[in-house]
Order: sequence, then C-alpha cells, then structure tokens
Amino acid sequence: MASLTIAEVNKLDSEEFLEVFGNVVENCKLAAAAVWSHRPFRGVDHLNQTIAEFLDALPQKGKEGVLRCHPDLAGRLAQAGQLTAESTQEQRSAGLDSLSQDELSTLTHLNQQYKVKFGFPFVICARLNKKDAILSGLTERVKHSAEEETLAGVEEVKKICRLRVADIVTSEAKL
Amino acid sequence: MASLTIAEVNKLDSEEFLEVFGNVVENCKLAAAAVWSHRPFRGVDHLNQTIAEFLDALPQKGKEGVLRCHPDLAGRLAQAGQLTAESTQEQRSAGLDSLSQDELSTLTHLNQQYKVKFGFPFVICARLNKKDAILSGLTERVKHSAEEETLAGVEEVKKICRLRVADIVTSEAKL
Repeated sequence: MASLTIAEVNKLDSEEFLEVFGNVVENCKLAAAAVWSHRPFRGVDHLNQTIAEFLDALPQKGKEGVLRCHPDLAGRLAQAGQLTAESTQEQRSAGLDSLSQDELSTLTHLNQQYKVKFGFPFVICARLNKKDAILSGLTERVKHSAEEETLAGVEEVKKICRLRVADIVTSEAKL
Repeated sequence: MASLTIAEVNKLDSEEFLEVFGNVVENCKLAAAAVWSHRPFRGVDHLNQTIAEFLDALPQKGKEGVLRCHPDLAGRLAQAGQLTAESTQEQRSAGLDSLSQDELSTLTHLNQQYKVKFGFPFVICARLNKKDAILSGLTERVKHSAEEETLAGVEEVKKICRLRVADIVTSEAKL
C-alpha cells in the first residue's frame, strides 16, 4: 500500500481521494466522499476524527446501513474468496481463515443469531482481536440491545478505519 | 437484469438486497444498506420514497459525498471503460459515447469549471436528457450557488435511482 504524507493527501482531487480512501470504511465509499471537502487535514488524527464525525452524524438507519455493508466474519463471502482485500487480510490476521470445524460452526451459529436479532452483522476490529476474543465478544454482545450494538458496531468500524488509514498515511511519528 | 416482484424483494436478506440494489445510488451501497430494514415495502414507490428520505436526511457533507461518488459525464472513467455497468448504459443512451471532438471538449471544460466551483461533479439523469440538454443544463447550472446545486444534484440522483429500481422491480402496472 502506498504511503502518503498528509501534505500529499491534501493535494488529492476527489477522484484520487476516493481511489485511495474509498474502502477505509468497508464498502462505504460515501464516508470518504463526504470528508474530502474537509481538507486540508492537519494530520492523520484530524482525518480520522472527520470520518468518525461523519459516522456519528448519520441517522440511526444510516448507522445500521454502515454495519450492513460489512461481511460476516468467516462467512459466505470469506469462504468464496470474495472479501475486499482489506477484509481478507484482517480476517486472516485474527486467525479466522484457519478455524477448526467446531470453531467455524460455533461462529456461524452465533453470527446468524446476532443477525436475526439485530438485522445487521456482528462487526469487530479483527486486527485488534484474535479468534478467541472474537468468539467470546460475539457470545457477550448478542445479549445486548439493538441500540447498544449499533453504537458498539460503529465504534468498531472507527477502529478498523483508523488502522486502514494508518496503512495509507505516514503518521508524523514515523517521519 | 432480473425482474422481481415487490413480494420477492421483501424476502431478500440483507446480503441479497445489497447485491441487487447496491448500485441504485451510484457507488453508494450505504443507501441500499440503510433502507433494507424498512421492509416490507408496500410497492416500488415506497421503496423509492424510502431511498429519497435517506438521501434527504444526510447532512450537507453527506449529500455532497453522494454527488462525489458519481463519475464525470464522458470523463476519464468513461473513456477508460471503467464506469459501472449502469453508468455505461445511461451515458450511452444520452449519446455521450459518440460526441464530436468539439462537444467533448466543451463538456470537459464545463465539467471542470463546475467541479472547481462546487467541489463535486455535475450530476444529471442521462436517461432523461440527451447530450444537447445535458450541455445546456450544465451551462446553466454552473451559474448557481453550491446550496442550489447540492439540492439539484440530489434530485437528479433520485431520478437515476428510480429508473434503476424500475429496471429491477416489476411495477404493479406491469403485472
């Protein structure tokens, strides 16, 4: 992945910006498209904060929609090799591509239970959680209310986004 | 394109719904993802109205973002053959794939002027306008204010969306 400085990011036109940041929120190009006009960004934190504010400002159905744009963990798309490049790498880093038959069966069952209850998939930052933490997180979170889970899901989306942005933009500390 | 009845639409799970309706708003899967939980839809009009309400409820930057997810008419992506299937067909139906060198040059110049002024591309429903109407519309609309053009652009997005939905869902009148 190309490493850009924030000064370089601030020079991108909207088409270029969408090509680079179009999937920092999974399958949700609109998030990048909406924040482009906030340039110039003062740094990576400012860019992340602007995306977070866009997500927070969405109406409830919009937040649920953001979650619905995410694939199931170790789900149909993963098994068919049809995840986005980012998701493929993230799910692998959590060990979700090498589950035992029992683990996969438990995850699939809990995912299904979660989706039926809330109407959107379970979203968790796979790069910050290994498979055991994901399974126990899912077991716990399926007990929550829909309101709690919309908020919890969007917070995970922000974590995923921050790590994807960090793959693209050189932070000041690294210069 | 598969033709579905509204009863069939109402039976789609969220992944299937996104596969079918994910691009009725160009490059903006979130619109379809957000409205899925409004099922059951009473008919095509209800589905269209729900998408329109989602667009109207977006904050200003979100509306601009929706416009920014649209390609330039007869622009770089069109010339590189990289438009979405829907946009390719729509731009062709308006005659934008067979512009004279002069027409292309005028359109490119006006598009650029529009984007520099507003920070988002000129969006017009190409299936309801031939190339002459598009050129004269662009000449006129570039004189407007950013607020007027955000609203005008989103109204065009709704028209494009209604025609894309009509390609997918059998309306009651056709039954």
